[in-house]
Amino acid sequence: MSQRLAIYPGSFDPITNGHFDIIRRGVRCFDHVRVAVAYNQQKPSGLFTPPERVEMLRESTAEFGDKVSVDSFHGLLVDYARTTGATTIIRGLRAVADFDYEFQLALMNRHLNGDVETVFLMADATHLYTSATLVKEVAALGGDVSQQVPSAVEKRLKDKFRTRS
Amino acid sequence: MSQRLAIYPGSFDPITNGHFDIIRRGVRCFDHVRVAVAYNQQKPSGLFTPPERVEMLRESTAEFGDKVSVDSFHGLLVDYARTTGATTIIRGLRAVADFDYEFQLALMNRHLNGDVETVFLMADATHLYTSATLVKEVAALGGDVSQQVPSAVEKRLKDKFRTRS
Amino acid sequence: MSQRLAIYPGSFDPITNGHFDIIRRGVRCFDHVRVAVAYNQQKPSGLFTPPERVEMLRESTAEFGDKVSVDSFHGLLVDYARTTGATTIIRGLRAVADFDYEFQLALMNRHLNGDVETVFLMADATHLYTSATLVKEVAALGGDVSQQVPSAVEKRLKDKFRTRS
Amino acid sequence: MSQRLAIYPGSFDPITNGHFDIIRRGVRCFDHVRVAVAYNQQKPSGLFTPPERVEMLRESTAEFGDKVSVDSFHGLLVDYARTTGATTIIRGLRAVADFDYEFQLALMNRHLNGDVETVFLMADATHLYTSATLVKEVAALGGDVSQQVPSAVEKRLKDKFRTRS
Amino acid sequence: MSQRLAIYPGSFDPITNGHFDIIRRGVRCFDHVRVAVAYNQQKPSGLFTPPERVEMLRESTAEFGDKVSVDSFHGLLVDYARTTGATTIIRGLRAVADFDYEFQLALMNRHLNGDVETVFLMADATHLYTSATLVKEVAALGGDVSQQVPSAVEKRLKDKFRTRS
Amino acid sequence: MSQRLAIYPGSFDPITNGHFDIIRRGVRCFDHVRVAVAYNQQKPSGLFTPPERVEMLRESTAEFGDKVSVDSFHGLLVDYARTTGATTIIRGLRAVADFDYEFQLALMNRHLNGDVETVFLMADATHLYTSATLVKEVAALGGDVSQQVPSAVEKRLKDKFRTRS
Repeated sequence: MSQRLAIYPGSFDPITNGHFDIIRRGVRCFDHVRVAVAYNQQKPSGLFTPPERVEMLRESTAEFGDKVSVDSFHGLLVDYARTTGATTIIRGLRAVADFDYEFQLALMNRHLNGDVETVFLMADATHLYTSATLVKEVAALGGDVSQQVPSAVEKRLKDKFRTRS
Repeated sequence: MSQRLAIYPGSFDPITNGHFDIIRRGVRCFDHVRVAVAYNQQKPSGLFTPPERVEMLRESTAEFGDKVSVDSFHGLLVDYARTTGATTIIRGLRAVADFDYEFQLALMNRHLNGDVETVFLMADATHLYTSATLVKEVAALGGDVSQQVPSAVEKRLKDKFRTRS
Repeated sequence: MSQRLAIYPGSFDPITNGHFDIIRRGVRCFDHVRVAVAYNQQKPSGLFTPPERVEMLRESTAEFGDKVSVDSFHGLLVDYARTTGATTIIRGLRAVADFDYEFQLALMNRHLNGDVETVFLMADATHLYTSATLVKEVAALGGDVSQQVPSAVEKRLKDKFRTRS
Repeated sequence: MSQRLAIYPGSFDPITNGHFDIIRRGVRCFDHVRVAVAYNQQKPSGLFTPPERVEMLRESTAEFGDKVSVDSFHGLLVDYARTTGATTIIRGLRAVADFDYEFQLALMNRHLNGDVETVFLMADATHLYTSATLVKEVAALGGDVSQQVPSAVEKRLKDKFRTRS
Repeated sequence: MSQRLAIYPGSFDPITNGHFDIIRRGVRCFDHVRVAVAYNQQKPSGLFTPPERVEMLRESTAEFGDKVSVDSFHGLLVDYARTTGATTIIRGLRAVADFDYEFQLALMNRHLNGDVETVFLMADATHLYTSATLVKEVAALGGDVSQQVPSAVEKRLKDKFRTRS
Repeated sequence: MSQRLAIYPGSFDPITNGHFDIIRRGVRCFDHVRVAVAYNQQKPSGLFTPPERVEMLRESTAEFGDKVSVDSFHGLLVDYARTTGATTIIRGLRAVADFDYEFQLALMNRHLNGDVETVFLMADATHLYTSATLVKEVAALGGDVSQQVPSAVEKRLKDKFRTRS
């Protein structure tokens, strides 16, 4: 009986409470969850840099101890999975628009590496419609997002948008 | 029994007959409908400027008299709602892709201000698939959009694209 | 400025906390909400009789005082609306499967009576996936549904299924 | 590091190649998959009896050895999960109509027993639209369903419908 | 260049204006459209008998002359298609709920007979949400369905429900 | 009995096996299929230039002989259709997100030119989730897309991304 390592990839720009909820559930299904920030070396984009995103993920998931680790990668997810020995990819399911895109991704990843299986977890009802994009829009306008993101993130969103304006 | 003021926010770039149909229905459900052009002060975008959009909305909704007013705002919708005393936000429901995004928005707005309720109205069947984006694409290529937009808008679309080419 | 009377029709077999949440929101948008149990005189069906459903609705909505009334009707909804003087029909939006059916109904009702407008309200995130059918299935198997239905309903579900087994 | 036992519940009337594909993928994600035929003691229904469904599942999954077991249960799934010590429920995701129903079920089960997590697996593209209901309709009319069901099932469908006609 | 014969199968219980619109569009895409009432010999069901449905279809499509013929069949659609020499199956696309079911059917039929292709046509916007089931419900309650069905059908719906009550 | 000419428009940046499958099916339904690369004269965009896309389409569809031709156009599709004498527009249906957009397009085109009918074909199950965008992302990262695109395209994707890096 080997250890079950699962990767939870995403842009996490930044981690929301919806992501956090998926991580928490992943920890219950697998022996270890590696949260992996995917980034594009040639086209940097997003509000936070990959190192900032990793740092916020680390602070927000510290309570899980060695059940969760945080990393970043560029290139193909399936190549990254292979180097880590993961056999499972975790994806959070939210709403219908996600659904088709997630199917595209899962089928493509399955084609690229048949040894890695994608499993979908469902966030809590209160997070099913939480979106990092909307959180950033609201924070940029000074709105309160304390119930949508971990406290480590809330603080940085405030810093980020104070600097900007 | 207090007056029922509802806000109908959007980018309205430009108003289409689908928007018009929602306004017409809103007038029947509420005492006053305030159509509010949302714009981003720091990232101006779109085909028409906010003042142009307001002007087209005013011309197109003149027939409703003082049942409808037109305004523009930046910042959070719920803050704008608070200053106007509105207790209801109107959104038009079109197709499935809308649906999830509208849920995200409505839940976020509910979180930001629990005193304002979002209600969804359904446009007439002939407008359920009308889209301002598609209207602009077709108009840019010289196509006839006279059945998708009010006449005040049709004229300006022609002017806009004549100037450009 | 006339009073805004809205009808909230449904089978309510039985009322769930999702329905209750819609009623609560309806009360904030309209002057009076009339909850109306629709039943088919010729083909009685369902777990509870129409009078039982009305009774549970009354007990569960007593806190709204004269802002809410409960009734039952058979025949066309638009005819019932006409006799009550209602100008608005309230429907709760839940998930995608609902969406198309609700559009069919709303367009048909609009065709049958152009004077009555359908507005859609969105239940709280925790109730977006609550279903009376699933509640009854779980209750029939002895499961705890105390968070899905008002207490008046929970008690009757227990009685109903105790009698049966 | 404890053993990861997952339950794959369903009506399996009968098992299709889509179900088989989910079982095969479940075996790769978990230490043991228990396929569990859910049936209603009081309202027997379906083409095959629960014992027949179990038998077809056993024949079709024999190749997985002791990684897969087959059982049947009535009552609440979460109660059954508790007695077996399973911490995970597997569900196969197919198309959009499924999606909302699966969300309802998963949220209800989560409410009934917070210790059991639902994970969704995605069948191969060729099985995403396979349905036991449609398979039975086609087989009843003499159509070839050899690519939609395991061979053990195909034979029994033929027997069943030969007897009937 | 051979003649293009297309089959438009359905239950047509009864034909609606949505069906009529699809037939009208099919006539423009193919040389001949054969409308085919599918029925189940062993489990008769529906409001109208198959011969009644055929008769209403014939009356309603008389204006297309020999471009349209009406028939009924039981058994597999692909077998029926083979006997008629049709190479195309027409299906009308309406709303999302349809979509997945239509995909299931089309993929199954493709599997059963790779020589017959399914094409989807889209009804006019005003008919996208017309449903024979809803039409019957409304007619049963005495509602006006004159804009949803051909006049030949409207008359028979009235007769049917007058007889009943 | 006139010849049935159908246009299959798209960006084809580049052609995928999903597009190829639609072309193959279109050839069976119509006498001639004209694949037409739509491009925007004023805002060139995409990975490949329109002439490159046409060339890849020609190489990939050579096996269909004079049943298929390849062209490019700018401006309104319905105007292009009129000049070619086509009476049908072919669109491939993939997933739900497509669906609403396709309805918008089809209804707009119907409004612009009522003489041209849009028909939807369904790709093979293995291609229902193939997307040119995802193919390009994977190829850019060095992934194998040989099962998603024709060989003529695979080679050019390699050249394109080798040049870039």
